[in-house]
Amino acid sequence: MITLADVEGAAQRLHGRIHRTPTLSSRTLSELTGGTVHLKAELFQRTGAFKVRGALNKVDSLTQEERARGVISISAGNHAQAIAYACAQSEVDCLVLMWKSASPLKVDATREYGATVDLDSANPDEAYDRLPLIMEETGRVLVHPFDDPIVMAGQGTVGLEICDQVSDVDSVIVATSGGGLISGVATAVKGRHPDARVIAVQAAASPSLIEAKKAGGSVRFAQSPSIADALTAPYFGKGCFEVCERLVDDVVLLSEDEIAEGMRFLYGRAKLACEAAAATPVAALLASKLDIRDRPAVAVVSGGNIAPDAAARILAGQP
Amino acid sequence: MITLADVEGAAQRLHGRIHRTPTLSSRTLSELTGGTVHLKAELFQRTGAFKVRGALNKVDSLTQEERARGVISISAGNHAQAIAYACAQSEVDCLVLMWKSASPLKVDATREYGATVDLDSANPDEAYDRLPLIMEETGRVLVHPFDDPIVMAGQGTVGLEICDQVSDVDSVIVATSGGGLISGVATAVKGRHPDARVIAVQAAASPSLIEAKKAGGSVRFAQSPSIADALTAPYFGKGCFEVCERLVDDVVLLSEDEIAEGMRFLYGRAKLACEAAAATPVAALLASKLDIRDRPAVAVVSGGNIAPDAAARILAGQP
Repeated sequence: MITLADVEGAAQRLHGRIHRTPTLSSRTLSELTGGTVHLKAELFQRTGAFKVRGALNKVDSLTQEERARGVISISAGNHAQAIAYACAQSEVDCLVLMWKSASPLKVDATREYGATVDLDSANPDEAYDRLPLIMEETGRVLVHPFDDPIVMAGQGTVGLEICDQVSDVDSVIVATSGGGLISGVATAVKGRHPDARVIAVQAAASPSLIEAKKAGGSVRFAQSPSIADALTAPYFGKGCFEVCERLVDDVVLLSEDEIAEGMRFLYGRAKLACEAAAATPVAALLASKLDIRDRPAVAVVSGGNIAPDAAARILAGQP
Repeated sequence: MITLADVEGAAQRLHGRIHRTPTLSSRTLSELTGGTVHLKAELFQRTGAFKVRGALNKVDSLTQEERARGVISISAGNHAQAIAYACAQSEVDCLVLMWKSASPLKVDATREYGATVDLDSANPDEAYDRLPLIMEETGRVLVHPFDDPIVMAGQGTVGLEICDQVSDVDSVIVATSGGGLISGVATAVKGRHPDARVIAVQAAASPSLIEAKKAGGSVRFAQSPSIADALTAPYFGKGCFEVCERLVDDVVLLSEDEIAEGMRFLYGRAKLACEAAAATPVAALLASKLDIRDRPAVAVVSGGNIAPDAAARILAGQP
């Protein structure tokens, strides 16, 4: 299991190479919930999402021999952009498996950062099935989007910043798919504040942590499409599950309408142009699925990579 | 004319009562322009726009007798919310003239802050014509949305923060309608950095500063509707014009399409959910109407009060 020291080490390595994103307070959300709500605006992070933290931390750790082999990864798009960016910084060749239904904006951005994108898979399931074959074919070294302790430690630096930015943090609410972000954040936050709560929020269309809990471990499961395209890992990470079983206090599931409402709220009231996945922590508060009365809470707004026309459909309330 | 000392005095009075909004850097805009572009994210200000700075500064200055008479003001919506908020803080009764075509979101928010809204006017022109009559009828004290030295000094605190947040600031780009913001910001920025440039950006549909320059002074002019609903003052402020004639270096006019493009860029790339008016400084850069090559520039993103469905139409590129 990763430790607080792993996350602190990552923070040292990343210092000056990523943005220390601002934490904004939301008066309206505080009034609605009876708590004190802060928004960790990680959508302003380089590459538009927290993922660059884990990707840089991992690429830093590769040996010269591994760098020479090139990197392979797999992603709905935020990790894709992050690993492409991290590889470009270190001049490492990068191939990312994405899928035909991925956000065109994310595919384009990944290519702009210099990676090769494989779009031969129809969906996440097919891409994850093809991954080991292409790894073997190409001999590239895998940078897993979530199930890697070095990636998890990198993402955990979001949690350290939260602890520095919000005094007496009580509840930290995190969008959860493969589990990389929440396992890192939980390690950091509970390492610093053992009594804090860490809450996972998932799209009901893709309840990876719930399925892992049912199965008693990481398991592939069938998911439905979601407007939260960043929450489509087909399983919860093994290493992430070990951490989350010990450190995550609650899991909240959200309908598509609830997620859309969160995004509209963040647009109209918090003025944040986030993607749907990143709106889920706030959506959980709006849907009264969490009690933070009289407590300081932080909702992580984890990314902002959505095309304006796709965002427009959600904001306008169109299906 | 207001002075740097007036703005510094306002900053002292406002300390702790407004947000010190973050300044975000934009890698993409920097690459596109060849300069170094910072975004002053004033859309995160209390009430969703910079206007609360001037409104609080002005309400602070009212005598007990004036407070007892109650306040009257006039606004497309951002100042309306701000003055409603400022009056509520001081328990002063507030009446705001808006107009039928005003953003329903802004009307609702103004009422939520506790003000009475007069919606009997069809458009800004009619409301400004009715203002002196209703002032006389009601005996209320006017808090002008821009043409008041105390309001201008309050808005200027945006400029002081920019000087503190961005080292060696060279160009400051400001959306301009009645002139309150730019006259305050120009006073602050040039007071601190006499060699800096201050640039006004206007909707071509509502070229108040251009018209004032043509007429050699503040003048009513006929405007067309704009998606930048916050830029609809029917004249440039008299006191504002005195300041701007001395301190503003350039005026840029933008088409509706150019403004929409700025808003889409800020959404998709800078992740800021701003309103159309607030996108005009960035739109001016995107339209290559300003040369900031090799210079540090700040584009003020002045507000974020737009309904998600109205934003959706602009983001989707619909008329």
